[in-house]
Amino acid sequence: MNYKKRSAQNLLGILNDLKRRPEDAAADLKIPVDELNYYLSGEKEIPAELIRRAAGIWPVNERDFYCVNDDCPIGVKIMRAKESAKTSRVMKRAGQPYYEYRDTVASTVGQFRPEWIKELCIVDNNSANHQAVQWNNGHFLHQFTYFIGPVNFYYKGERGDKKVAVMNTGDSMYITPFVPHTFATRKNRAGEKGLILALTYGNKLAGETQQELSAIGPELAADYALDFSTREKAAASLLRFHREAAGIDHPELTRRTGLSLSLLEKYELGTVLPKPDDLEALAEALNIDRRELLPPDDIQKKVLVNYYRTNRRWDFPSIDPAYKLVELARTSHLSHSRALELKVLKQSDKNRDILDLKVGLHQYVYNVGNSPVNINWRTDDHEYCESIMPNDSMYVKPFVPHNFRGPDGKLLVLRIGGRVAGEPQRELSLIGKQNSARAFGEMIPWFNQEGRNKV
Amino acid sequence: MNYKKRSAQNLLGILNDLKRRPEDAAADLKIPVDELNYYLSGEKEIPAELIRRAAGIWPVNERDFYCVNDDCPIGVKIMRAKESAKTSRVMKRAGQPYYEYRDTVASTVGQFRPEWIKELCIVDNNSANHQAVQWNNGHFLHQFTYFIGPVNFYYKGERGDKKVAVMNTGDSMYITPFVPHTFATRKNRAGEKGLILALTYGNKLAGETQQELSAIGPELAADYALDFSTREKAAASLLRFHREAAGIDHPELTRRTGLSLSLLEKYELGTVLPKPDDLEALAEALNIDRRELLPPDDIQKKVLVNYYRTNRRWDFPSIDPAYKLVELARTSHLSHSRALELKVLKQSDKNRDILDLKVGLHQYVYNVGNSPVNINWRTDDHEYCESIMPNDSMYVKPFVPHNFRGPDGKLLVLRIGGRVAGEPQRELSLIGKQNSARAFGEMIPWFNQEGRNKV
Repeated sequence: MNYKKRSAQNLLGILNDLKRRPEDAAADLKIPVDELNYYLSGEKEIPAELIRRAAGIWPVNERDFYCVNDDCPIGVKIMRAKESAKTSRVMKRAGQPYYEYRDTVASTVGQFRPEWIKELCIVDNNSANHQAVQWNNGHFLHQFTYFIGPVNFYYKGERGDKKVAVMNTGDSMYITPFVPHTFATRKNRAGEKGLILALTYGNKLAGETQQELSAIGPELAADYALDFSTREKAAASLLRFHREAAGIDHPELTRRTGLSLSLLEKYELGTVLPKPDDLEALAEALNIDRRELLPPDDIQKKVLVNYYRTNRRWDFPSIDPAYKLVELARTSHLSHSRALELKVLKQSDKNRDILDLKVGLHQYVYNVGNSPVNINWRTDDHEYCESIMPNDSMYVKPFVPHNFRGPDGKLLVLRIGGRVAGEPQRELSLIGKQNSARAFGEMIPWFNQEGRNKV
Repeated sequence: MNYKKRSAQNLLGILNDLKRRPEDAAADLKIPVDELNYYLSGEKEIPAELIRRAAGIWPVNERDFYCVNDDCPIGVKIMRAKESAKTSRVMKRAGQPYYEYRDTVASTVGQFRPEWIKELCIVDNNSANHQAVQWNNGHFLHQFTYFIGPVNFYYKGERGDKKVAVMNTGDSMYITPFVPHTFATRKNRAGEKGLILALTYGNKLAGETQQELSAIGPELAADYALDFSTREKAAASLLRFHREAAGIDHPELTRRTGLSLSLLEKYELGTVLPKPDDLEALAEALNIDRRELLPPDDIQKKVLVNYYRTNRRWDFPSIDPAYKLVELARTSHLSHSRALELKVLKQSDKNRDILDLKVGLHQYVYNVGNSPVNINWRTDDHEYCESIMPNDSMYVKPFVPHNFRGPDGKLLVLRIGGRVAGEPQRELSLIGKQNSARAFGEMIPWFNQEGRNKV
């Protein structure tokens, strides 16, 4: 569906939520109802000035009227190496050329912000304190990095100390937002420059959530950050958060659970992890799902360095495999992020009809090998095939059935959850498949003026 | 901070994510770098036409450039009964006046879309098939409803059958999105018209998440809705979702967990719930947090009817209580939504300094009693006090310290999670409190051109 139609659906959704019929909304906006109906028909976009006026009248935001654009209507978007090269820009630090940046594929639908970065700064030793390296400030996005060639990765450790990891082709790392870091080429005889694929992306905090935090304001929003320094502290903070949200104090919680006051206090101080049975009792007393009180299984480090040679590798499928997979750096904090190296084992066209891959995550793919790879995929009952050359990159929408074929193909694949995976997906699933289509875009007003006695 | 400044921060964040220095961005946009720096200074908003141009050049959306507005800078926003009355609109169905709608308070920061609705349709019996009632189509938002006076609530049951609940003052209900429903006044001697407070709100699916689903497109997005019809089916669907996301088939999962192929198949068919130890083994094999594989503790009904007389009630605090709380309708599917009736027990001003309430949820408050209530609160080191008259309503931002005082005060309070509570809050907590302020609004570029060797 085109942007105008989706934008019209979205407008209807806003009016529904505000419980305004077109005549009510037109009166509020001081425009003829025919004009509003014209926008609702999807023939013409609602003008920016009218959006601004609406945001001044109703408790809505201008951004609510603008849709996420679909720049990938056939399910796959490709950026060729040649196009990437055109975006080349050299960034200096301390007056010296430090990085060459090139864009690779990004879509308005997915949250990837991936860059190809050549390390122009050359170091002659592996000291973490090398004078030539220039550190950044860290950034808001999560970063997965794939290394090609002799690259040193510098980062700030948990105790604020400088660290260096000596990386080579196939090695990878994950880095938490706001950790300062930098990269440099290790001096080598061949004069080869190091290269990284720096795949940054927003997860659950990006976009509108960050906007809400900003609107709430720094003083109040700071309280959202709970103490997750240990599993015990995380469990303690979550319990307190939910207890306070429920308007229940310790004596009342004791009455409801039978747990002693002193045990409850220990749990909320984070000196001891709640026993599974107690956790269940607490969730029941607070009338919430047990999941809400569970701390992360593991508090992982803010930087995870991953060496290719030690990685887990397996075939997919197990019988008559089409791919050899290698798991790259990831953190269990981001359960929906997965980084893989994918070696293509099949080349014959006769398997073209078997689209053996389909995942509910957004995918970024980069041809890190020396051979072209065919991607075959299907969207809206059309079959497509494209040849992906070395250094081409592509974005694949969630749930697109696809496969990769070709001799000696080697791909880097990063899968991320986007906005839907996780809690929103659970909410959608509880609403039920039957009604889910209406959740994607409202096509009807919330009632019919002619009345409806039969349902 | 004002909208322009926040908008400038947001612009800097977009450029950072795109790894564009101002000079790179200005060149892409074909404007002088001074002009761009002017927008980045927060002196002037970036014009709508330039935003459109940017969305045509970069893989970003126009909406990304517009911020969530803060229409509640002092932490509390009040709408007086008189202002509500001005928004009165009568909706006809089948040619007859059916409802009178009035807005109550809503904020650009919170997701509440609350309406005061008088039931103009009068029924003379409690048949679910009454000819006078006109059903709606259901709507995208979740709905909590508080009843005042003699109101019949009609809804479609799980099997598609029509149901009626006979409600009175203090009764309440929760209704899942898209369940068709309607309301009518029960005929009574006094000629009293029934009234409801229909508090609709988006949860995790609203806003940008719905936008992403819409951009992905109905065919692909439909796959996000998992089978959550039973706990077993939910566990099965989640396991399959994560297994496929990891690129692992059953034989490989057997190798990693030691669980038999036939048991794995049973788990994915949803014939049996995974044992806790097996769930742990599966999460470990998939290298994800155990929470991701846990089904909801309870699959609740789509409509929950709650009678006031049977409700749980307690004092807060337990010692020297300031409030009597009564829990109203809620579903454990929405762990961050809580509806309460709050009776104010303290009236003396000497307690004014004790702000005994502070919750990490957005709050909607309506004075359902016959007496004024004072709200005292603090934001940014300022103390405020306002008198809330009967039928006034107010929005309170998360984490605002506040209290209510006054004789015979009776308030309806609805607390909701908004965009941050839940997964985004966990993500923020894992980033750590130290860096969280930068997550609310980026104030610095991701690196300094002058270089930075010391960190």
